[in-house]
Amino acid sequence: MTDHSTFVIFGATGDLTRRLLFPAIYRLYAQGEWAPTRIIAYAKEDWSASQFLTHVENNLKSFAPTFDANTWERLKASVTYRSGDLQAHDLKQLAPDITGPAVFYLALPPQLFAQAAKGLGEAGFNDQTNGWRRLVVEKPFGLDLESAQTLGNAIAAWWAEDQIFRIDHFLGKDTAQNVLVFRFVNRLLESVWNGAHIAQVQITYAETLGLEGRWQYYDKAGALRDMLQNHLLQLFALVAMEPPSGWAAEELHNHKAEVLRAVRALEADSAVAGQYGPGTTQGQAVPGYVQENGIAADSQTETYAALKLHVDNWRWHGVPFYLRSGKRLAADYAEIAIQLKPVPRHLFGAGLADWIVFRMKPDEAIDLVMFAKKPGLEMDTKQVILSAPYKKAGEHDYSAYEQLLLDVLSGEQSAFPRWDEVEQSWRIVDPILKAWANTPPEVYPAGSQGPRSQDRLMEAGLQWRPLPS
Amino acid sequence: MTDHSTFVIFGATGDLTRRLLFPAIYRLYAQGEWAPTRIIAYAKEDWSASQFLTHVENNLKSFAPTFDANTWERLKASVTYRSGDLQAHDLKQLAPDITGPAVFYLALPPQLFAQAAKGLGEAGFNDQTNGWRRLVVEKPFGLDLESAQTLGNAIAAWWAEDQIFRIDHFLGKDTAQNVLVFRFVNRLLESVWNGAHIAQVQITYAETLGLEGRWQYYDKAGALRDMLQNHLLQLFALVAMEPPSGWAAEELHNHKAEVLRAVRALEADSAVAGQYGPGTTQGQAVPGYVQENGIAADSQTETYAALKLHVDNWRWHGVPFYLRSGKRLAADYAEIAIQLKPVPRHLFGAGLADWIVFRMKPDEAIDLVMFAKKPGLEMDTKQVILSAPYKKAGEHDYSAYEQLLLDVLSGEQSAFPRWDEVEQSWRIVDPILKAWANTPPEVYPAGSQGPRSQDRLMEAGLQWRPLPS
Repeated sequence: MTDHSTFVIFGATGDLTRRLLFPAIYRLYAQGEWAPTRIIAYAKEDWSASQFLTHVENNLKSFAPTFDANTWERLKASVTYRSGDLQAHDLKQLAPDITGPAVFYLALPPQLFAQAAKGLGEAGFNDQTNGWRRLVVEKPFGLDLESAQTLGNAIAAWWAEDQIFRIDHFLGKDTAQNVLVFRFVNRLLESVWNGAHIAQVQITYAETLGLEGRWQYYDKAGALRDMLQNHLLQLFALVAMEPPSGWAAEELHNHKAEVLRAVRALEADSAVAGQYGPGTTQGQAVPGYVQENGIAADSQTETYAALKLHVDNWRWHGVPFYLRSGKRLAADYAEIAIQLKPVPRHLFGAGLADWIVFRMKPDEAIDLVMFAKKPGLEMDTKQVILSAPYKKAGEHDYSAYEQLLLDVLSGEQSAFPRWDEVEQSWRIVDPILKAWANTPPEVYPAGSQGPRSQDRLMEAGLQWRPLPS
Repeated sequence: MTDHSTFVIFGATGDLTRRLLFPAIYRLYAQGEWAPTRIIAYAKEDWSASQFLTHVENNLKSFAPTFDANTWERLKASVTYRSGDLQAHDLKQLAPDITGPAVFYLALPPQLFAQAAKGLGEAGFNDQTNGWRRLVVEKPFGLDLESAQTLGNAIAAWWAEDQIFRIDHFLGKDTAQNVLVFRFVNRLLESVWNGAHIAQVQITYAETLGLEGRWQYYDKAGALRDMLQNHLLQLFALVAMEPPSGWAAEELHNHKAEVLRAVRALEADSAVAGQYGPGTTQGQAVPGYVQENGIAADSQTETYAALKLHVDNWRWHGVPFYLRSGKRLAADYAEIAIQLKPVPRHLFGAGLADWIVFRMKPDEAIDLVMFAKKPGLEMDTKQVILSAPYKKAGEHDYSAYEQLLLDVLSGEQSAFPRWDEVEQSWRIVDPILKAWANTPPEVYPAGSQGPRSQDRLMEAGLQWRPLPS
């Protein structure tokens, strides 16, 4: 388990390190999954090592559910703290500590990604002569197609694609990976997985939460950038890609990129934006988005986005894919739901249509929504839900960050979007970002199903699956 | 609800009337499903009406779980008792009471079926001038193809096919009917329901019970006649038939008969017979079949029968259907289990294969046995069972006899095998009956999975599903 690479965190005093990264490191260490030799925490703050370690320890106590003081004593022996900026000159101070393989984790504000990548390159840390060097980049990766390409080029000037690990924590989740596995190890599914049998796909990520203090980032981003461009389009790619001939990262990336490229260019009428107004969430009155702290009264940022995609290939000809995500909705609920075409109406008058559902929130489960004979004397039907929880009690649970950290350390890139996937995702949403720049979103009441105008995305005979309430 | 037909039971003092028929009549009446005007109980015993009614009442108290004295008082007002034989002369005494529509239920020993059908015909009760006349016949319908044809002809001499209701109580069970419904209202199933995707079908009816006193009938019948020729071949027909264009009895019969006709003629090596020896059932030592009361020490009656069928049509080319039933096995368990072909081995090394299971005993449920990603860091699989109980708490439960009685009264024949289905079923098993006439069955220990030689029926790569133990 002992790992001889050096793990360098940039932005070590920031929010992401505090909330996600160090709790994941701690937990991997506590479970014996990773025994780091050297973790270098780097930030601009002129802190002492003990100041930093106390800061981490205090946070671990609230973010790592099973904090144990002895474990932390052992782990912290490998942690050092350095302060400096992101210019090559300052970064070179790290050189004596980084002689072999190393991870450079950019837990930084996005406007610093390019600068850090360049500074590290200029300081020679991208040179793999004495061991691999990997760069981990957090989201958001750009604000639109052009800025993403600029950022992509800036990083690519110093780092090769197989050195770059772009975090999309949705792909570290077991249920996302299970979409792939479940599809391809069950003949029952893969046999119907095409436009001859599938009527529509709905990918939903709904939150009851509002802004929760992230307004500086969120008001510039909005739901389309924050959720759809990355997470939901990645889930889409897992659902829609052609079957791979193996689990190798390259196979998966090739197939995901191919299906993203096959998404037909979007017109403005294939998208709906919403912004929550005042309303009621879980019995409590809550303010509207423009009443939130820090938000301007005339903000047009969308807190809800829905897209309809068409895929121009043989498998998906004629099948609409719906992606939606929003804040202050009726439920905390996330799922991938695939509806089959209805069966012929001759037997029961109604065209009954099955659903295959991968539920991610509030619990992780696979549901098949089907129909059976209603018990009793009549030849009539009732809906039955065949369900399997994804995890059984006692099965080990890894957080997405733990899973992704281990992947970075072992050089496994399959759960990290490749550059062409990122670029294609921006290509898909870019026309909508432009169309929305001067259009106010429809205001929907907090706690509702979202904006009414989302219904116009639905093709004849289809309906949004209601959020549970 | 009031029904103006006359319901005549022949063999009214017998076991079937006592255990199944009157409890079903009572329950239908108590639930308001059927208010009979006149029930005539007919038997050879020279009983008084009150003697018969006391006999029925005593039995209802043990066989009808919710006996209510007031309900019985009202119901028994419509019941009369008559004694006589099955010749036209005696039967004609019923003529004054039977002026309109009437059901003639033959709850008689099978050797009397032909005689009763003829006597009733000679007495003119088959004449539908003043209302429909229906004949209900219980199993067994013959002992082999030739005797079944003789019986079929004897009845057909006096009764038209649309007057004859042959009871197969398996077809009155909701789960049997659900096989049809579930197949045809779920695209997820019907899309894979053919030899391109299905590897094998196993239809199992296993009992832990031994003879339980029915030795006179059973020692002449054996498992092949008692269970496979009728019940399991009917379930087979529901699984294998082509999709009907409606639920009309004629459509269903046509399709069931067609697929039974398409069953390839059996050779002796497609069948395995077993007979239970001494062993242990549910922790108790039990005697072997030939040690049971009434059974000769050299009896060669099979208490276990297994068949492998092939269907010579496009849908089922190359798919083996396995039917098996036995007494004194490891579990009380009944199911229809359909295994899909394995998926390509490239992703996980093992060719994983889904099962679709309709379970009838010990509980009624639909299970899909599939595979999902094992939670955790590795790309590995685990089996998951997506399950739906067939009945929810509170859903009304009708016994097979209740369901079938109402069908008889309403003239609905779809749950009653048509003559050509019965004939085809005998055609299928007849070569095996002949082959077994001079071959001793393999003795298997009571409480086991059955005879070892059943494994030779399995084609390459297939296995019997083990009975739960």
